[in-house]
Amino acid sequence: MSLYSDFFYSNHINELFSDRNEVARMLEVESALAQAQAQEGLFSEDLALAISKCCSADFIDINLLKSEIKLGGNAAIPLVKQLTRQVKIQNFEASKYVHFGATSQDIIDTATVLGIKEYLNFIESSIEHLIENLVHLVKKHRETAMIGRTLLQQAKPITFGLKLIGWLSGLEQSHEHLYQLRNRVLKIQLGGAVGGGNASITEDVKIETAILLGLHISVSWQSSRGSFGEWASFLGVLSGNLGKIAKDISLLMQTEIGEVFEGAAEGKGGSSTMPHKRNPVTCAAILANANRVPHLVASMLSSMIQEHERSAGLWHSEWETLKDLMSLTAGSLEKSIELLEHLEVNETQMAKNLELTKGLIYAENVSLALGKEIGKIQAHEYIEKACKKAIAKDMHLLDVLKEQSLDLNNLASYFSATFSLDATYKAIDKVLEKYS
Amino acid sequence: MSLYSDFFYSNHINELFSDRNEVARMLEVESALAQAQAQEGLFSEDLALAISKCCSADFIDINLLKSEIKLGGNAAIPLVKQLTRQVKIQNFEASKYVHFGATSQDIIDTATVLGIKEYLNFIESSIEHLIENLVHLVKKHRETAMIGRTLLQQAKPITFGLKLIGWLSGLEQSHEHLYQLRNRVLKIQLGGAVGGGNASITEDVKIETAILLGLHISVSWQSSRGSFGEWASFLGVLSGNLGKIAKDISLLMQTEIGEVFEGAAEGKGGSSTMPHKRNPVTCAAILANANRVPHLVASMLSSMIQEHERSAGLWHSEWETLKDLMSLTAGSLEKSIELLEHLEVNETQMAKNLELTKGLIYAENVSLALGKEIGKIQAHEYIEKACKKAIAKDMHLLDVLKEQSLDLNNLASYFSATFSLDATYKAIDKVLEKYS
Amino acid sequence: MSLYSDFFYSNHINELFSDRNEVARMLEVESALAQAQAQEGLFSEDLALAISKCCSADFIDINLLKSEIKLGGNAAIPLVKQLTRQVKIQNFEASKYVHFGATSQDIIDTATVLGIKEYLNFIESSIEHLIENLVHLVKKHRETAMIGRTLLQQAKPITFGLKLIGWLSGLEQSHEHLYQLRNRVLKIQLGGAVGGGNASITEDVKIETAILLGLHISVSWQSSRGSFGEWASFLGVLSGNLGKIAKDISLLMQTEIGEVFEGAAEGKGGSSTMPHKRNPVTCAAILANANRVPHLVASMLSSMIQEHERSAGLWHSEWETLKDLMSLTAGSLEKSIELLEHLEVNETQMAKNLELTKGLIYAENVSLALGKEIGKIQAHEYIEKACKKAIAKDMHLLDVLKEQSLDLNNLASYFSATFSLDATYKAIDKVLEKYS
Amino acid sequence: MSLYSDFFYSNHINELFSDRNEVARMLEVESALAQAQAQEGLFSEDLALAISKCCSADFIDINLLKSEIKLGGNAAIPLVKQLTRQVKIQNFEASKYVHFGATSQDIIDTATVLGIKEYLNFIESSIEHLIENLVHLVKKHRETAMIGRTLLQQAKPITFGLKLIGWLSGLEQSHEHLYQLRNRVLKIQLGGAVGGGNASITEDVKIETAILLGLHISVSWQSSRGSFGEWASFLGVLSGNLGKIAKDISLLMQTEIGEVFEGAAEGKGGSSTMPHKRNPVTCAAILANANRVPHLVASMLSSMIQEHERSAGLWHSEWETLKDLMSLTAGSLEKSIELLEHLEVNETQMAKNLELTKGLIYAENVSLALGKEIGKIQAHEYIEKACKKAIAKDMHLLDVLKEQSLDLNNLASYFSATFSLDATYKAIDKVLEKYS
Repeated sequence: MSLYSDFFYSNHINELFSDRNEVARMLEVESALAQAQAQEGLFSEDLALAISKCCSADFIDINLLKSEIKLGGNAAIPLVKQLTRQVKIQNFEASKYVHFGATSQDIIDTATVLGIKEYLNFIESSIEHLIENLVHLVKKHRETAMIGRTLLQQAKPITFGLKLIGWLSGLEQSHEHLYQLRNRVLKIQLGGAVGGGNASITEDVKIETAILLGLHISVSWQSSRGSFGEWASFLGVLSGNLGKIAKDISLLMQTEIGEVFEGAAEGKGGSSTMPHKRNPVTCAAILANANRVPHLVASMLSSMIQEHERSAGLWHSEWETLKDLMSLTAGSLEKSIELLEHLEVNETQMAKNLELTKGLIYAENVSLALGKEIGKIQAHEYIEKACKKAIAKDMHLLDVLKEQSLDLNNLASYFSATFSLDATYKAIDKVLEKYS
Repeated sequence: MSLYSDFFYSNHINELFSDRNEVARMLEVESALAQAQAQEGLFSEDLALAISKCCSADFIDINLLKSEIKLGGNAAIPLVKQLTRQVKIQNFEASKYVHFGATSQDIIDTATVLGIKEYLNFIESSIEHLIENLVHLVKKHRETAMIGRTLLQQAKPITFGLKLIGWLSGLEQSHEHLYQLRNRVLKIQLGGAVGGGNASITEDVKIETAILLGLHISVSWQSSRGSFGEWASFLGVLSGNLGKIAKDISLLMQTEIGEVFEGAAEGKGGSSTMPHKRNPVTCAAILANANRVPHLVASMLSSMIQEHERSAGLWHSEWETLKDLMSLTAGSLEKSIELLEHLEVNETQMAKNLELTKGLIYAENVSLALGKEIGKIQAHEYIEKACKKAIAKDMHLLDVLKEQSLDLNNLASYFSATFSLDATYKAIDKVLEKYS
Repeated sequence: MSLYSDFFYSNHINELFSDRNEVARMLEVESALAQAQAQEGLFSEDLALAISKCCSADFIDINLLKSEIKLGGNAAIPLVKQLTRQVKIQNFEASKYVHFGATSQDIIDTATVLGIKEYLNFIESSIEHLIENLVHLVKKHRETAMIGRTLLQQAKPITFGLKLIGWLSGLEQSHEHLYQLRNRVLKIQLGGAVGGGNASITEDVKIETAILLGLHISVSWQSSRGSFGEWASFLGVLSGNLGKIAKDISLLMQTEIGEVFEGAAEGKGGSSTMPHKRNPVTCAAILANANRVPHLVASMLSSMIQEHERSAGLWHSEWETLKDLMSLTAGSLEKSIELLEHLEVNETQMAKNLELTKGLIYAENVSLALGKEIGKIQAHEYIEKACKKAIAKDMHLLDVLKEQSLDLNNLASYFSATFSLDATYKAIDKVLEKYS
Repeated sequence: MSLYSDFFYSNHINELFSDRNEVARMLEVESALAQAQAQEGLFSEDLALAISKCCSADFIDINLLKSEIKLGGNAAIPLVKQLTRQVKIQNFEASKYVHFGATSQDIIDTATVLGIKEYLNFIESSIEHLIENLVHLVKKHRETAMIGRTLLQQAKPITFGLKLIGWLSGLEQSHEHLYQLRNRVLKIQLGGAVGGGNASITEDVKIETAILLGLHISVSWQSSRGSFGEWASFLGVLSGNLGKIAKDISLLMQTEIGEVFEGAAEGKGGSSTMPHKRNPVTCAAILANANRVPHLVASMLSSMIQEHERSAGLWHSEWETLKDLMSLTAGSLEKSIELLEHLEVNETQMAKNLELTKGLIYAENVSLALGKEIGKIQAHEYIEKACKKAIAKDMHLLDVLKEQSLDLNNLASYFSATFSLDATYKAIDKVLEKYS
């Protein structure tokens, strides 16, 4: 991530996935395993205590560890080596029970899940925070009329609240899915060399270890990687939901539209030589992440086809991919909160843009009303002709109709955004019900 | 799909997504909408009936429809045109209420969801079928010893039942997720031109339409595509779970391993000129699909960043991608059922392969037992030396140890796959509990 | 592709890849092989002639072929079966030499390359056509001033010609790459069962066959798939270049910008009830394709890791992916030609949008000029203040400066798009040199 | 990359892309630009010299730079700020000409290309090194018979040389493509704010800058990203070619096959408790990278659809993706060289595996020879029956045929790998010609 660690990412999550914390989580698993095995009577609690005391990243030479990974092919092998050496210094007997009956993958997978667990809590509260922001904005902008746009063309009026409801609904679904996937994802991997357990890795040891780590128990999933697949996908959808928000804001912030803006911080997004510019810098970061994330999800899904009891390569391809995926999504989430907290809404410009077509966006309103009096087809033809005239003469449609002395009650009333927004208010209110 | 429609796909699902059935589902939505609007008093039930009577694919010239899509940019526009014409012939008044207040996306998205609903039922029962097969096989092979392999190397014994448990667990998770995502995915899209509803698309009309179609109600999700993102991801994980099975079988079927085989049908996978060959043809199809599916999932996730109230391109990119994704996954599922139903297990060869390393896979057993007597380190060194001797002299490790007159009770007993499989049986039994 | 065969695709290329034509190309390979073998004296030319006479898709029952693919796992096996039967009827002796020494993959891969060859010619002339269109447009719009936009914000003036030059340069690179990859991609696959050739597939037979088919000779590339990887990537880049064009046009066509438009055909992109709408329907199709294509490229690259002398699944995953990739890219190319041929450019609106910021986009011009007189820093501060005043008072910057009696020669001249476009003209002219 | 920086990557390339070196390359561009502008008379050479003297990463506070990126949205803005401050200290007048007329993207893109240039040289010489290794191995194993495998089944004999030729041909194509893409990829980006150049960024300044940096001149490609698309794709294909090699080796290294091995370093790939294990650790790293790379290529291709003169997000999404892509591919390349340099080939095991089917792999040889005497069909039926008998009785096919007193000259000679390898030798020799 290097130069751009602040730009695309969350510093909090960068720290969570630091080398040191990755190592600490692997040691946490080793410690819990030893404790569980002692509790199950495989050796004395003193020995387990001796092991646990050494399970601190302070004792690990991380650079040495990194340089040795290429020998064994994963981080657990050199870690266990260093840990055993450390325990041996403290308590020779205890050193026999370090990593007792376990396999590298038990440690790495379970440590990864511990990382996910912390991450998941961060993500969950961040989503809730974002939902809160959005609900607040929806309430505020329930009736803030603006043009709805389809295929990048002005279509018909909506309110900004409705647009916000769309953003909100995506996050609500992510939130619901997040709740449901916990028990599928937050589970220990513990099965020994080939996953079936052994004299040191009994079902009871598995249960104890899971309890100590606050994880669910599970049959070994060494090469059954659906839980990581679902987790990656969840992040992919969440990132997509956030990208959608950033996309809309960046479009609404176009010089020619100017309806909604990223909050301006000192020096942010500006240009000293181009004073009119206000770049959607935060949106750009979120959109960049949203462009990358789907491919990382696919990378995780591609890596599911793992051979036999442990894959030669596909397991390994998960490690950094999953971390990148989580880091980018966390960055987007943190930035989205910031984005919505400081969002600036220009209602005047929204109103002005509603007038841009000189009444043409209201043609359908008039046509429907007229249709009830003179028939749908006739009305449609009449109004279509009037629209063409309005365009040709660059006149407001209402003026054209007045000029033609159209006989329709409250003619001007049709030329208003609010004329047709009742259903929109109701749609919004229905969603807001659960937040009242 | 063309030439390979039978090979990669399920004919049943190919039919479900035929042009005609796609059109029929769009018409089903138009019909339900008209019925709902009549029930809500927007027009008489007679008129709705007249519309519904015309909502049959029989009345649609599909080639004409296809050729007109490039004008309007989607299939609903020419469909509504043809439908209106048809209704007009039957009941001029009714023709005014065809597609009343709706937008193309309402029809297309909701019809897609109707397709997903049928598909989902097929998938669900297929997964259940597959789980049943697997449970049956697990019970049968609970104690069928074979070598476990990590990084494509023989590691330690497992039973075939344990391998099957791994396959099973992936499918169980997919099954659970499938159940949970129903209400997020099976929902109508109905919101009119810009999603907020209108005088013809009221909240009550939405509820009625949803009830008629057997779908959940929802706020408009025209450009909030998380539900399709999650659905695509679900398929991605399922496809990965199936690919894992096919991968293992294709590897076990290698000439040099020969432990498990695809069932041989007349003329299947064979070669008249190479009589020893038995190609894993079904596995190849499933693996081909598993290689393609993750990228299609990414395609769906990439398409989530949709602009404003309807995207110019990203919505459109979903249509075929989602269909391909569902078709490939259905094909893999159907083929996996066939694969497991006719699976041939060669237990003799499994036993033979356990002997391939001449006892080396049991070195750890002896080392652990010996360690209790002479100390872990000493035992390890002793056995390591013996192993090297066994390799150098191409002798069985047991013979080396005997030659060296190793004093250990029941020495031969350590040289057996079953020696260390107790934990494996228990791990299997724990999973089987819920199927007893 | 079904319902959307006209929308996303090129009918011409759809036809090129029809089942019948796929079969015909496989037969073309069988025929050339027989001819080559006869020329090399492996059997008489009469027998080769008898075989070639039967190598017509007319003799093939394609539905039967499709239904048998799942037995052998590819299309060549049932095809050779039908072909042999047909030859046997005509000339029993000749039937012994059908597919003589060849393997299925020889036929399928070489037939695919034959398809690519035809496709490549179509693509090449289409790119040239598109380049021609663009050069024409560049010449026309060399001096058509418009605002340049960065991060979706108005930045500084460019000319439409410069934007077109950017589009052009992408296509020029694709064109150059296309020329260079021909000899890597357009090569026969011919090697027999395991690629090394045999008594019937000699080096000379390979050369003859290659000559007859107009392909390059090559060592067997059964499981060395870089040429397809590069070919897929080429299509990915081309599709990206086309997507960039469609993206810009769709953005310029926004109601609020209105500078450039897709040509309007009768009934195209319009809406009878929303007369102001003009949907970028063609852009949407190209953008949809551009969103899908990168994932299909990745699918092809993922499939490169093929096992041994023929893969169990990855080879199979290429078949439909490559075809989809070629079909989508051809569709985009055909649609891009149409798009540019009928492009409507609204120079008035371009000029109007240059005035939208009321002179702020010219602030830098004044600042630089003033800097020469009073110093860069002082000038910058002076102008920055004036800009803020202009924004606050909603005044034109020029008026603010006049009001402040700024003493600068030809002050008004700085407030013109053309003021700073000399370098742009030169950049354009440099590119145009090779087209004069 | 963190913990796994040594495992998946090349330390040399990690260093090339260190923060400090990224910054140094940006400064190199600023320096060259100043020199070029002075040469073109825009300011004195003294001023340019003053700027160039400050263009050293030593003067840059990289942590400060990183923390400020989120304000401006890219690394050039805070870098120019720091550089300007530094120059101002040395030479106030010169500070006016820092980054004169340039835009952030000019600096970032060109610096990226400078990084690619260095990287490309490393890659090119590494490929050449690898090709050399392969050619050496091909020569050595031209006649080393082994079984060819299709769909993971033993098919017919090849030589290891032929397999190596397949690996070689992929790299040769990458090498050729690499040569051709240089002028498309190694080009400056220099165009000022919106790409068209300006009074400080003239065509002559562009030419001078390009010459100073050793890059090709080009029209601005700010939002025409095909060159990066092609570059990414090239890496994707190269990574696929390397993955193919690692795949084959990992499969050949299976305990049950044991034909080819990664070289064993002290402590590498082994397991102290499982002495028979020899994990393909290097293959696993290469395969992990090969699984990730295609998705990163797709990410680059997806980012081509950039808006207007600079994208809001897609440009930004390239930065880390391209770096990851290059880093992973370099890692794979470095590891592949190591892999092939220390490759161990077990010819005895190859010979042994040829006997595994007890002559069945030679059935076709006999059948073809017999066919010439008694007719193809009759021969085929006779041999097929004999094969079935051999399988049923677990006899060698030759013994069955002898038992049946088959009258065929030199019967035993057909049961030899070398019987049919002449064409293979010739195919190899043809490739070797250019290396003699």
